[in-house]
Amino acid sequence: MSTSSEIFSPADLTAHCQAITPPDEAVRRQARARLDNLTKPQGSLGKLEELAARTCAITGRLDYRLEKKIILTFAGDHGVTEEGISLFPPEVTGQMIHNFLAGGAGVNVLARHVGAEVWVIDVGAAQEVTAQGLIARKVRPGTANMAKGPAMSREEALAAMAVGMTTAREAIAAGADILGTGEMGIGNTTPAAALFATLLPVPVNLVTGRGTGIDEPARQRKIKVIEQALAVNRARLDNPLDTLAAVGGLEIAAICGMILEAAKSRVPVVVDGFISSAGALVAMRLAPLVRDYCFFSHMSAEQGHRIFFQEMDLAPLLHLDLRLGEGTGAALGMGLVEAGLKIMQEMATFGEAGVSPGE
Amino acid sequence: MSTSSEIFSPADLTAHCQAITPPDEAVRRQARARLDNLTKPQGSLGKLEELAARTCAITGRLDYRLEKKIILTFAGDHGVTEEGISLFPPEVTGQMIHNFLAGGAGVNVLARHVGAEVWVIDVGAAQEVTAQGLIARKVRPGTANMAKGPAMSREEALAAMAVGMTTAREAIAAGADILGTGEMGIGNTTPAAALFATLLPVPVNLVTGRGTGIDEPARQRKIKVIEQALAVNRARLDNPLDTLAAVGGLEIAAICGMILEAAKSRVPVVVDGFISSAGALVAMRLAPLVRDYCFFSHMSAEQGHRIFFQEMDLAPLLHLDLRLGEGTGAALGMGLVEAGLKIMQEMATFGEAGVSPGE
Repeated sequence: MSTSSEIFSPADLTAHCQAITPPDEAVRRQARARLDNLTKPQGSLGKLEELAARTCAITGRLDYRLEKKIILTFAGDHGVTEEGISLFPPEVTGQMIHNFLAGGAGVNVLARHVGAEVWVIDVGAAQEVTAQGLIARKVRPGTANMAKGPAMSREEALAAMAVGMTTAREAIAAGADILGTGEMGIGNTTPAAALFATLLPVPVNLVTGRGTGIDEPARQRKIKVIEQALAVNRARLDNPLDTLAAVGGLEIAAICGMILEAAKSRVPVVVDGFISSAGALVAMRLAPLVRDYCFFSHMSAEQGHRIFFQEMDLAPLLHLDLRLGEGTGAALGMGLVEAGLKIMQEMATFGEAGVSPGE
Repeated sequence: MSTSSEIFSPADLTAHCQAITPPDEAVRRQARARLDNLTKPQGSLGKLEELAARTCAITGRLDYRLEKKIILTFAGDHGVTEEGISLFPPEVTGQMIHNFLAGGAGVNVLARHVGAEVWVIDVGAAQEVTAQGLIARKVRPGTANMAKGPAMSREEALAAMAVGMTTAREAIAAGADILGTGEMGIGNTTPAAALFATLLPVPVNLVTGRGTGIDEPARQRKIKVIEQALAVNRARLDNPLDTLAAVGGLEIAAICGMILEAAKSRVPVVVDGFISSAGALVAMRLAPLVRDYCFFSHMSAEQGHRIFFQEMDLAPLLHLDLRLGEGTGAALGMGLVEAGLKIMQEMATFGEAGVSPGE
């Protein structure tokens, strides 16, 4: 994709969001009927049943299988790191891109565990990165420092969203039956917290955590930096797109775009952790129907993820205190969606097994 | 095994429990050191890291792999069902044994999903069941009605525990690197609740739920039945073994035995849901060190499981609102333990990947 030749405009975004339609309720009912006739008390496989029924409703098919799973891991850097809000230097983003491509990162291990591929996209690493297998779609080399002005222009945010959409479309064209979100970006719990504070909305303190492991005084400084960013950008925070541009990130915008694309294409998408949920929140604010296409994989150890789930009335599948990102939780979540589909498709019915149904 | 020729006595049980030793803390430290040197912020894979480190400590090996996983699903019936506390008739236990052996039940689907075998053991089905592949070790055809007297004699409870121990030993001899608990028994949330009420201890109301789907008036009757059972058996509830005999079940005793055997043999064991946790609780009361050998897979939708975790200060891995039993949650939990081990063994270190460690 050449981002210069494909301008993605606010009108294009509006049209995209309007093209998203609800899952198929008739297929959901058929899936539920099948689930209720399997050799188990009705509803006794809980969320696994919900995962199956919703995947059928999303895709319109009762025989849907997850033969190909693809995680999209978007890398981006953050100008706000110059405020000293992270333990790691920004060059780690570039180093980790090489680690992803070599198969040595956490997301690679967990993706292999569930039979998923990992695609790595440079949408905004600060460094120049060239590597075999990298999908090079840098919109700009890191965002600007949001504590001093907007992180991105509206056009840059749209371009990063378009990168997410294009890559998702390519993954679906390559056969992906389910997508997982992932990201890498030193400092990106800071813009994610700023997005939660603005779009939920909630006080900054509630959604600002320790990221990769900062101490409490550093967390207090991080809160001040975010409050400053929200004050500096106040005039830009009156709609989801401009909020994303002002206090978001390139990888967060790309995740937002990939989720919007998955929903339009009727492909289920498993959302990773804290950062990915910020991208999903922007997508849900732009197009509320997106919610039904998202499976939230896990409750991050990052303070504030719990607030997101509470405020949105959503419940994650796993409680593993993960706080790595990359798509690690999404990988495990994909395995659970697949388990749900297999339950629906492989379990015997009462009739087939000769088991007496309950009263 | 012939239960008649191998008498398992209270003294044997005491000796078995005393032979359980703690996991190897030196190996746990080595595992933690390895985990802390991987390309991720320290501790950022949360419980996956804990699963890995604890499995290493249990087995004494850093290179431990889950090449063979075996779920033991014990079937038993309950005389207390004559009080009308379940929606399903007891013959379903026998029917489900055939379903397990045919591969059509929930546990079969989820076991295949994670690459586990399911062994099915008749330790106390009410019906006579003969089937290819069934491990036939019936101690008695269902328990007596605990609302009118003890569910089992002490000797029968010990014999059922011995069935669990023997089968676990055989699974380990067959190469099992990890065991999962499972059960099938119409009405068995009733004895499980009685065990929680007695051994945690907590009020009956808190741990009595809707089982396979009874309504609130039926739940109130179930509470009264359990209270009656505890009153009738009051004199027998002064130690874990006699409590298990008085208000437990044959499959619960077998699960208790398999957990005691796994701990003695230093093999990790993944505990399924509400019923299995009751068996694990008896094991932990008999031998507190057992706790370190158990991985609790999920928080059941059955009211009372939450109380168990709170009272024991334990945290399950999955929140899927499962309430089927059989070993379904244990299967998914095995997949997570394996994911944790793979993280430790397959991720690149900072040095290997050329990634800058944090401050």
